[in-house]
Amino acid sequence: EIVAAIEAALADGPMKGRRVLVTSGPTHEPIDPVRYIANRSSGAQGTAIARALAALGAEVVFVTGPATVPPPEGVEVIRVETARQMRDAVLAALPVDAGVFAAAVADWRMAEEVTSKMKKVAGKLPALAFTENPDILAEVSKMTQGRPALVVGFAAETDDVEANATAKRLRKGCDWIVANDVSPATGIMGGAENAVTLISGAGAEVWPRMDKSEVAVRLASRIAETLGPA
Amino acid sequence: EIVAAIEAALADGPMKGRRVLVTSGPTHEPIDPVRYIANRSSGAQGTAIARALAALGAEVVFVTGPATVPPPEGVEVIRVETARQMRDAVLAALPVDAGVFAAAVADWRMAEEVTSKMKKVAGKLPALAFTENPDILAEVSKMTQGRPALVVGFAAETDDVEANATAKRLRKGCDWIVANDVSPATGIMGGAENAVTLISGAGAEVWPRMDKSEVAVRLASRIAETLGPA
Repeated sequence: EIVAAIEAALADGPMKGRRVLVTSGPTHEPIDPVRYIANRSSGAQGTAIARALAALGAEVVFVTGPATVPPPEGVEVIRVETARQMRDAVLAALPVDAGVFAAAVADWRMAEEVTSKMKKVAGKLPALAFTENPDILAEVSKMTQGRPALVVGFAAETDDVEANATAKRLRKGCDWIVANDVSPATGIMGGAENAVTLISGAGAEVWPRMDKSEVAVRLASRIAETLGPA
Repeated sequence: EIVAAIEAALADGPMKGRRVLVTSGPTHEPIDPVRYIANRSSGAQGTAIARALAALGAEVVFVTGPATVPPPEGVEVIRVETARQMRDAVLAALPVDAGVFAAAVADWRMAEEVTSKMKKVAGKLPALAFTENPDILAEVSKMTQGRPALVVGFAAETDDVEANATAKRLRKGCDWIVANDVSPATGIMGGAENAVTLISGAGAEVWPRMDKSEVAVRLASRIAETLGPA
């Protein structure tokens, strides 16, 4: 880890002088004091991207939910649990030159916080009332002041990946969408490899299946290219 | 780990010749291919109990959900994810002399399995329909043939711990309930210590707050005492 920190500090790469935000991991949304809603994001792809950006010399703020992989060395780590906490951490980290929103943020949370454990009552089933979580990607993408020059979102889809991700890019107002197919059969969610399609204003670019670390290096170098020298 | 395995194999303790089942950890109940409902059980208490029973010479079958602590050495480990998988693994492990049901099994699961990721639709909130999970503790406690001589359940409560746990013992038909207060303020769920009340037909016995490993040793020795020599 010392080596990683020294490498990052000494890095004189194309991202030197650039400040970048990366979100990663799942969020957990409490149902009651013991239960919560989670998702299968391991944080592997977001962690690899943060590492790759730091290796190119960027100053990286890494906002992570409860991931199963450890955060990279040489970056500023901010740990959160819920979508609302992640939003607050993201806004506090601005301004940045680029924001990479790789976290799998829960779309919904419970409408009301329950402070006692829900009891099982014979013949009764719980009715959970939901409310929408803040849409962090859309909020940052649509900022009129202080918007990052480059906003990159992620789309985890199980059907019609390219069409859904293209629509998501327009809806959210971000510059790029990194789309992937998380159908269980692909083994991507929680796995070592990823097969992504990069959606930009120029169209869709299908990348071959490769290690998440290779996806990260390729994406980081595209970000560096797009931002240009600081 | 080799040491642990040898210790267990050579153990000539009071549980020699006894076969014991321990369940541990949370269960995860899928909502769709990426989302699931979880709970904050780390598996620490169940793991410690399995380890303590093995150290007394028992043959231990350890059925565990996706816990955050690694399973003990020297026991047979069966990994499951959902409550239904845990039930199947438990029934397959019988007969046993004692069953210790320390897992935090989800009371409910989704009524229907959704095979595509639920999409966020503007202005629409998801309505999750639940159904009851199998009640593994009650099912084993009420077996008319092949019931373990000693069935130990757990109660994770946030209010009226002793009253709720006493009622639970009668409702489930188990012999003992190990009750604890999992209110977030206690730091017990996910923490190193536990403060339990042992509920049996003889009444409630309040144990002082101690390390989960000490709770485990004490409980294992009570189990050995109750079963007597094989």
